[in-house]
Amino acid sequence: MPLDPKRTIAELKELCALTGDANGAQRVAWTDTWLKAREWFAGKLVGLPVEHHYDAAGNNWATLPGASEKALLIGGHLDSVPNGGWLDGALNVLATLEILRRINEEFHGRPPVTIRVVDWADEEGARFGRSLLGSSAFAGTATVAADRLRTDRDGVRMDEALRRCGVEMDRFSEAAREQKNAAAYIELHIEQGPVLERMNLPLAVVLGTKGVERHAITFHGQEAHSGSTPMNARRDALAACAKLALEIRAIAGKHPDAVCTMGSVKTFPGIVTAVVGRCEATLDQRDLDAQVLATMFREAREASERFAREEHCTVEWSRIWQIEPIAFDAKMLDLCDEAIREVTGAAKAHRMPSGPLHDAAEVSRAGIPTVMMFLQSLGGISHNKIEDTREDHLELAVRAFDRLASKAIAHLA
Amino acid sequence: MPLDPKRTIAELKELCALTGDANGAQRVAWTDTWLKAREWFAGKLVGLPVEHHYDAAGNNWATLPGASEKALLIGGHLDSVPNGGWLDGALNVLATLEILRRINEEFHGRPPVTIRVVDWADEEGARFGRSLLGSSAFAGTATVAADRLRTDRDGVRMDEALRRCGVEMDRFSEAAREQKNAAAYIELHIEQGPVLERMNLPLAVVLGTKGVERHAITFHGQEAHSGSTPMNARRDALAACAKLALEIRAIAGKHPDAVCTMGSVKTFPGIVTAVVGRCEATLDQRDLDAQVLATMFREAREASERFAREEHCTVEWSRIWQIEPIAFDAKMLDLCDEAIREVTGAAKAHRMPSGPLHDAAEVSRAGIPTVMMFLQSLGGISHNKIEDTREDHLELAVRAFDRLASKAIAHLA
Repeated sequence: MPLDPKRTIAELKELCALTGDANGAQRVAWTDTWLKAREWFAGKLVGLPVEHHYDAAGNNWATLPGASEKALLIGGHLDSVPNGGWLDGALNVLATLEILRRINEEFHGRPPVTIRVVDWADEEGARFGRSLLGSSAFAGTATVAADRLRTDRDGVRMDEALRRCGVEMDRFSEAAREQKNAAAYIELHIEQGPVLERMNLPLAVVLGTKGVERHAITFHGQEAHSGSTPMNARRDALAACAKLALEIRAIAGKHPDAVCTMGSVKTFPGIVTAVVGRCEATLDQRDLDAQVLATMFREAREASERFAREEHCTVEWSRIWQIEPIAFDAKMLDLCDEAIREVTGAAKAHRMPSGPLHDAAEVSRAGIPTVMMFLQSLGGISHNKIEDTREDHLELAVRAFDRLASKAIAHLA
Repeated sequence: MPLDPKRTIAELKELCALTGDANGAQRVAWTDTWLKAREWFAGKLVGLPVEHHYDAAGNNWATLPGASEKALLIGGHLDSVPNGGWLDGALNVLATLEILRRINEEFHGRPPVTIRVVDWADEEGARFGRSLLGSSAFAGTATVAADRLRTDRDGVRMDEALRRCGVEMDRFSEAAREQKNAAAYIELHIEQGPVLERMNLPLAVVLGTKGVERHAITFHGQEAHSGSTPMNARRDALAACAKLALEIRAIAGKHPDAVCTMGSVKTFPGIVTAVVGRCEATLDQRDLDAQVLATMFREAREASERFAREEHCTVEWSRIWQIEPIAFDAKMLDLCDEAIREVTGAAKAHRMPSGPLHDAAEVSRAGIPTVMMFLQSLGGISHNKIEDTREDHLELAVRAFDRLASKAIAHLA
């Protein structure tokens, strides 16, 4: 049974039909549809000589023992955002399944090193707002005390939802046992952005994941009647926020790969007849360089204070979340680079940072040599039912990722 | 029984206690609390030789017949916004009650002209979003077909809520009968802005009400992942909107009394990890000069289109509402000016436009010579429980407004 990338595409479509609807993929972690996807995947493992179990954080492991206990981990996630796409996360898992079949066949059930396929639990954080949940438990960076009381939009508590799926948050730390013998980790993912399409490239080596500074910013001015308050007597919280919404582009623009995004603005009282008295915004800043990230955060904060003063407002910042930049392993980057060049025939593989976070960041934090491979996304669209990638590129990606797996095995053996 | 402005203050406090709570006045039109306020007011009329009825739009009329059928109308509104102040609307009604008592006493129940006190129905439009409802029915400018299907936040239809209060929207046009013999209209109101306090003046003549252009503006860009989308590949709808939020200040700033307000901004999907794909804003523009208003509207629209182009977005405008500027009657302005000068002893009365709309605008539209008198607001705050005015200013206002009533009677007689 040689590698069959077309089977991966067929299985992606099968999963999509089983767990999606007219609005897209609906495999939100800790829901029945997600459990159905995992059950379907377990069925795909039948007939392969793998040990299969869920760890204490709900991560789904299938292990093909090798001559050496040293393990190559290959991962993805079956969970999706609501109304998500057919490739995000699922491509990784199903490409890995195909590669597992090929390795099992080639080595007659006993590869040189142990191969472990992992379907991480709740990469997206779509229901409770906490992404990379399962991989953080694996890495020992989980924040159970802070997370357990999170609620979904229906008021269901996170720990209760997980218990219903057989996962006790108190036991999360036990998932770190899965690190044992882990010698390398590789992950394939769609880019979810427009860079490769613009460069007309199918694949790229991922240098690492950008660090993120994520803050809530509130400007306080004075609510006032839109008809009776002269322009020069206003303390318009929206005006201060609007200045910041524009300034963050100049702040990001000083660095080639940096991004700054104001994704949400809320106005209070938020009615047509009142000057905005309070304006709440979010700011997400990312770069692969920790120093650049720190500079951008400081500049945005200083700018917000300057704009608040100019508008006779005040401003307060509250950190929502942060993560440091994660650089992937130099040797693994080279293996990925070789795999892409060999499959595409190109003289050079493109290397780029990942703006989105991935489970690979948590695995890398655990000290396991890690690399990711990116595949072109059409239109740069993801987290949406129109998320798509050319089928010839999907096949190419499965072949290149399989080549990377072989190189990693050879490297570890 | 001479004029007793202290009684007006006492009655305002009585009404506040009866129909307010810890969050402020709760006399929202077409609610039980509003009906209770009107019942309380009817009780205050007992013993005065007035004819009392509600017209077909729910406006509350108390008529003291005079030697002439020519009528001086004096009005206000008992309805409030939710969590409103103790003076907005109610001051007008209770000052008018006090003046009615004084006139009745002075002329032994038969003044030279007929005096008609009116408590307009639903000035605020707080429940159904349609302000000046009763006075527009009086003026013949009601928009019943467009308004009847409005719903409140609980889904109750406007026509059903009015029916519960004994008002049939189909019969609104009959309220115009109340225009018969109306020869002048005067209205006292708190300024609801900071101008008089800044000028250290208690009272002002109101030149008229500013015209209003009120629009919903939607910028369409492209929702995109905040991590994976380079700054130069974005179509950020918030950025285009932020530029407009700042530009409207320059547009208003060219004209001394003009105001432009962006009171609401909504972002979609409105999450921290996505570039804003759609941004909905409201714009409220006001000036007393129709030409200035038209220019400001055109300039804002052109600016929005320019900003949309710059950000690779599109923009669409949809008119929410508009009203033309209403200039009050020149002779009535002079009478109001005299009344203020006589009571304050000042050599000159300040004249200013009203940014907020008032029922007086609708009465003036009906061709009835109209003027309003403004009273200083503390801190420029209104539509809030902290709305307030110095008690010596309240007393002064009742005396000045009474003087205006006398001058109007003399003018009409």
